[in-house]
Amino acid sequence: MGFSLDKTRFIGTMKKQAAIGGTENGGLHRLTLSDADKEVRDWFLSEMEAAGLDVRIDEMGNMFGRRAGTDPNADPVLLGSHLDSQPYGGIYDGAMGVIAALEFIRQLNDEAIETTHPVEIVNWTNEEGSRFQPAMQGSGVWAGELDLETEYGKTDENATTFEEELERIGYKGREPAEPATEYDASLELHIEQGPKLEARGKDVGIVTGIVGLSWGAVTFEGEAEHTGTTPMEGRQDALVAAADLITAVRRLPSKLGNRTVGSVGHIESRPNSINTVPETTTVTWGIRDPDDSVVERGREQVIAEAKAAANRESVEVEWEDRARSSSIRFAERPVDAVREAANELEYDAMEIFSGAVHDAAHVAKVCDTAMVFAVSEDGKSHNEAEFTSWDDCYSAANTFARAGLSLAK
Amino acid sequence: MGFSLDKTRFIGTMKKQAAIGGTENGGLHRLTLSDADKEVRDWFLSEMEAAGLDVRIDEMGNMFGRRAGTDPNADPVLLGSHLDSQPYGGIYDGAMGVIAALEFIRQLNDEAIETTHPVEIVNWTNEEGSRFQPAMQGSGVWAGELDLETEYGKTDENATTFEEELERIGYKGREPAEPATEYDASLELHIEQGPKLEARGKDVGIVTGIVGLSWGAVTFEGEAEHTGTTPMEGRQDALVAAADLITAVRRLPSKLGNRTVGSVGHIESRPNSINTVPETTTVTWGIRDPDDSVVERGREQVIAEAKAAANRESVEVEWEDRARSSSIRFAERPVDAVREAANELEYDAMEIFSGAVHDAAHVAKVCDTAMVFAVSEDGKSHNEAEFTSWDDCYSAANTFARAGLSLAK
Repeated sequence: MGFSLDKTRFIGTMKKQAAIGGTENGGLHRLTLSDADKEVRDWFLSEMEAAGLDVRIDEMGNMFGRRAGTDPNADPVLLGSHLDSQPYGGIYDGAMGVIAALEFIRQLNDEAIETTHPVEIVNWTNEEGSRFQPAMQGSGVWAGELDLETEYGKTDENATTFEEELERIGYKGREPAEPATEYDASLELHIEQGPKLEARGKDVGIVTGIVGLSWGAVTFEGEAEHTGTTPMEGRQDALVAAADLITAVRRLPSKLGNRTVGSVGHIESRPNSINTVPETTTVTWGIRDPDDSVVERGREQVIAEAKAAANRESVEVEWEDRARSSSIRFAERPVDAVREAANELEYDAMEIFSGAVHDAAHVAKVCDTAMVFAVSEDGKSHNEAEFTSWDDCYSAANTFARAGLSLAK
Repeated sequence: MGFSLDKTRFIGTMKKQAAIGGTENGGLHRLTLSDADKEVRDWFLSEMEAAGLDVRIDEMGNMFGRRAGTDPNADPVLLGSHLDSQPYGGIYDGAMGVIAALEFIRQLNDEAIETTHPVEIVNWTNEEGSRFQPAMQGSGVWAGELDLETEYGKTDENATTFEEELERIGYKGREPAEPATEYDASLELHIEQGPKLEARGKDVGIVTGIVGLSWGAVTFEGEAEHTGTTPMEGRQDALVAAADLITAVRRLPSKLGNRTVGSVGHIESRPNSINTVPETTTVTWGIRDPDDSVVERGREQVIAEAKAAANRESVEVEWEDRARSSSIRFAERPVDAVREAANELEYDAMEIFSGAVHDAAHVAKVCDTAMVFAVSEDGKSHNEAEFTSWDDCYSAANTFARAGLSLAK
């Protein structure tokens, strides 16, 4: 079999991290920059130091630990993910990627393996984006996609700034939040958060890219009138127009392509009274596809459907873009490394496009990047019911480590 | 012309009441049992006393003022409406009905007209139902449709009870909240709160009845999943099912009848996040028609459509009734009195069914009842933009007074 992680120790380390901020129902409540986040960071820091790593904390609280390589001119290979969780989220999510990276270092140490390239492991700050927006804040600043001072000023629902909380937990580091060096390659391990691997009975996913997405909001404005006294023919019902658009968005993916997904996640209607015709209704929609031109066509069709719905109901309509990101196709070299690792380990692997965005999307701007996906039972994630069997965790972690070794060797 | 109100004085009295709780934008913020409600009640009480009326306050705070008739065996004729308003509502609404009743008494006094029947004028407590639910609380208890102790225990959003507030403002009267006597007939004047009179260029509305209504709530329950990673074919999107139902409710009236109205006024969706497939969506719907069998058929079709929508989206569905009330056809005698009054005054009047429920619905359980509607510009009501020209106010008040006189004579 060759190089493999110590399965028992890997599971044990997973359980240790899961106990920090763990919930009664077996989930994890470890919001970014919370006391639980500080605790897991302190633990991770001491484990990195115990493993002999050269530790750096940058201005965004991103935590790096470096194991030296034999070639002083070789750029490091970067492996990791994130330790923060959603409110009452699951214990696997990104944490498994950080733990697998740590276990990779320990295994290298145990077997006294020297690598040509340095190996760095990383815990990115605030991947989740539930306490401070946007998501992937740490890797975003690091990759130059977000501005440090802007992100420092972001506030949570108690109006506490990101910077204050980062200082409070002692993780506002001195290193600049930017790549300290060129990087040779990077790998991230994460759970799939979707049902595809499990549905096809696979052991592990070889992530070849991340879908592009377009998010927007549409607001319909009609007239608030008494539902009993206003004749049907005079009504301008904003919610009826919104319902039309929701139905249209449900229909769009089947028209655009078999990899397209789209939905309306959020709706807000005013005055929202049983006795009043809805005056203002806002919905947010999202369309994703690996092909950016499909996403753009989807966006145009959502706007066209919104106009048509507004016209049918004689209401006003306004729209705005909320987010747009291009699809990412990962570099061949690290994807090949993942594929070969799974192959050597005789795992039943499948190539998959990520439907969710990850820190790897930012890291891919800096160096050749790929991802490994672990099976997500029922695709459940971001809640306490999130589950991956220890066998599936291990298959993914082992693939990740083996691919890391082949890149660093 | 015969008997008519003093137009100048009527407008002056309307302006006096409108100043109590009046808003910067020319509206009225006079929530039931608030300080403004106390102030307008104190004013109304002193005006009733000044007009020589025998005043009674009942346990619900309903205010009555009686002018004696010549026949000691004749039952009184009751005229009035309500002085409370919606939050930032309009100055006309029900207040005009109380003011017109007061002006009717003054005119009788000025002309020294003796009526066979006593005339009573009334201000019903909490018609609006925005601070304490349900609406038409005072007339409801009075007519025996609601229970006194239950209504005493109702709380506002600060958890203050109805009874506490009634005592605080000094209007928990000693008279039982029930008809003190048999009543010969009753009339209520209110603004239409709909656009029909204005659209047809009418001066006044002869209200022949109140529509029946059925209100309900439907909850769809699907699965909360990541919008990016969950394939379309596996989704159970509660909001999509709700959108289906909203569209169906929009379509129903045109199928049921030309007097039917129906709409979804309220929607709530969880977790209501741009990035999560909606798990639980609740909508409330309402159907109204003068014909109860049409309302019942509408209710059945809403439930059938809800089941069909749930089935299409593979989500669970539950429904509950929220309110049902039968349509009311007003008694011929008071309706005829209104028709004849408008005719004698040479107003262009139109028969109309009320799409909104009023205190008259409760009063109609006690005695022969009818209503007069004043024009509502654009049908706007329950907001500060509510408007009726003084000419239209006067036409309605005058019709109301003349009909009252013909019933009391």
